Amino acid sequence: MDHLNEPAPAPVETAGSPVPALPRRVTVLSGGVGGARFLRGLLHRIAGTPGSPTEVTVVANTADDIWVHGLKVCPDLDTVMYTLGGGIDAVRGWGRTEETWNAKEELAAYGVEPTWFGLGDKDLATHLVRTQMLEAGYPLSAVTEALCRRWQPGVRLLPMTDDRVETHVLIDDPAEPSGRRAVHFQEYWVRLRAEVPARAVVPVGLEQSAPGPGVLEAITDTDLLVLPPSNPVVSVGTILGVPGIREAVSSTSAPVVGLSPIVAGSHVHGMAAQVLTAIGVEVSAAAVAEHYGARSTGGVLDAWLVDESDGAAVERVRAAGIACAAVPLMMTDLDATASMVDAALRLLSEERR
Amino acid sequence: MDHLNEPAPAPVETAGSPVPALPRRVTVLSGGVGGARFLRGLLHRIAGTPGSPTEVTVVANTADDIWVHGLKVCPDLDTVMYTLGGGIDAVRGWGRTEETWNAKEELAAYGVEPTWFGLGDKDLATHLVRTQMLEAGYPLSAVTEALCRRWQPGVRLLPMTDDRVETHVLIDDPAEPSGRRAVHFQEYWVRLRAEVPARAVVPVGLEQSAPGPGVLEAITDTDLLVLPPSNPVVSVGTILGVPGIREAVSSTSAPVVGLSPIVAGSHVHGMAAQVLTAIGVEVSAAAVAEHYGARSTGGVLDAWLVDESDGAAVERVRAAGIACAAVPLMMTDLDATASMVDAALRLLSEERR
Repeated sequence: MDHLNEPAPAPVETAGSPVPALPRRVTVLSGGVGGARFLRGLLHRIAGTPGSPTEVTVVANTADDIWVHGLKVCPDLDTVMYTLGGGIDAVRGWGRTEETWNAKEELAAYGVEPTWFGLGDKDLATHLVRTQMLEAGYPLSAVTEALCRRWQPGVRLLPMTDDRVETHVLIDDPAEPSGRRAVHFQEYWVRLRAEVPARAVVPVGLEQSAPGPGVLEAITDTDLLVLPPSNPVVSVGTILGVPGIREAVSSTSAPVVGLSPIVAGSHVHGMAAQVLTAIGVEVSAAAVAEHYGARSTGGVLDAWLVDESDGAAVERVRAAGIACAAVPLMMTDLDATASMVDAALRLLSEERR
Repeated sequence: MDHLNEPAPAPVETAGSPVPALPRRVTVLSGGVGGARFLRGLLHRIAGTPGSPTEVTVVANTADDIWVHGLKVCPDLDTVMYTLGGGIDAVRGWGRTEETWNAKEELAAYGVEPTWFGLGDKDLATHLVRTQMLEAGYPLSAVTEALCRRWQPGVRLLPMTDDRVETHVLIDDPAEPSGRRAVHFQEYWVRLRAEVPARAVVPVGLEQSAPGPGVLEAITDTDLLVLPPSNPVVSVGTILGVPGIREAVSSTSAPVVGLSPIVAGSHVHGMAAQVLTAIGVEVSAAAVAEHYGARSTGGVLDAWLVDESDGAAVERVRAAGIACAAVPLMMTDLDATASMVDAALRLLSEERR
């Protein structure tokens, strides 16, 4: 552990050490785009290790789910499923490749709100199947399993909960007596493009929710738990907010490693900066680690990777009782992302020596 | 009335007489494609009479409605709405112009039945709006009115009932103990292309249904009631089967004129031949008139137009107490269809002299 007290190692230092093998069971707590891209790199790393027995379970955020035009839409589940199943529009990062938007345009022609939600024609089929199964009484976890039979994402994909949870964001609205108005997270992100300040984040229904089938077991009965560079508030934050999940993460015998979604003082994708500000957390790689907290002090992290540009954060993270290294964290391609997996394994291996 | 006892007049004979003006209120009992095309001709005729005060009400068949992929689809209402609103695919005669089929292909990729139903991406928007309104508690009549605010079909479009009625067709199936199996009308028509014999037609729920709001008034408080060349069994037949509607048609003070959907011993479009056979009615223009029956003997017709190729049917129809003329009944274009309206007015006018 000695070297953990030294200044941030340059990537070349860790890159030189042998990469520990991936354990048999890996569980990842994922949001949408960032988590899905990380998972592709993880599967790429596994595929590059012939005979690797590693099995990946993904516990996905469902708090940005939305009912729209009578259909249940689960953006994070679908982003993971489409990304790993080869159906994602890689440029946008969400929705289906070679998508068309005829139904959406027609809904707008009928004057039906919301007109801003990105409901593609291909994508609609997923929501139709899901909604019909939900209305027939199947829980979301069973529906997700059924959808994955087509997509074969190469991971076991579990919704964090089968209960309805919806993140709302409080924004300024002078027209309201309170001066504030709550909008669905999707409205904040898609319609308002996160361009107005988020004053608070309200995960409606979260406290009353229960972990989905297999979720707690995926956290306690695993060999490695990863917090990918997903949003620490509205993605990983809501997963941890499902009663029982934070406790399971804190007490699992598996090591827990996270990758910073904040690079050089801002998010790479999404609106983490806005929602971190809303909950009073500094927008920095070190502050997010402190927000998650060290498992030794009741938090959820054993180790934390920051980007090479955030080398100065390493000492501060270590001071919080969390092992830390600075490595390239930009998921520019599959190999770059696979290297992040290697760096996480190396960091944990070194921390355990 | 003298000339009604003469042999069938050639079209040139009637074409010479002056065309009576359209009355102020016209009500049409319509199915899908045939009824919609007739209505276009009727509106064309009205538009060609500047200052015409004629208002058209359409009572549309809803017995071929189907719940598919969790959505309520009303083929006949939509065909009338799209046709008169300028959104129809004129070549197919149903569905939207410049349609795409991405959602349908994706649903098939999920392995979700039915894969044979023609659910276009643009069309989907209509079903989404309808389903969401129905699930919010609006009756089908109110939903139809809302959808028509966009399409402005130029007629008042009324579903025959707000209740669920579904026509099923009995077909042969050696695998069943009874040797018969019931399929939804849409499955008989779309999947089986009406290529197997229809052994019986079962309009499930029809006897328990009630006329939709305004339907009986549209029949009793009108100046002309028209049975367009729609299917006499599964379209006009089910409309007349809603308890109260047949009685209203029999007793309205307005004259009732019908146009034969059977030309030269078969249907022009659809599967009237198959379903007429199923109910034991000869497939001929005269037999359909006899099936409807003369109002003077408890039926629903005062007058009946047959195609010029069916001139031999005129005497037989007259013998049933129904005024009859043979005129061109092929709806090849708007003018041809408008001429059918003129012929109907002429026939009624001559019959009343």
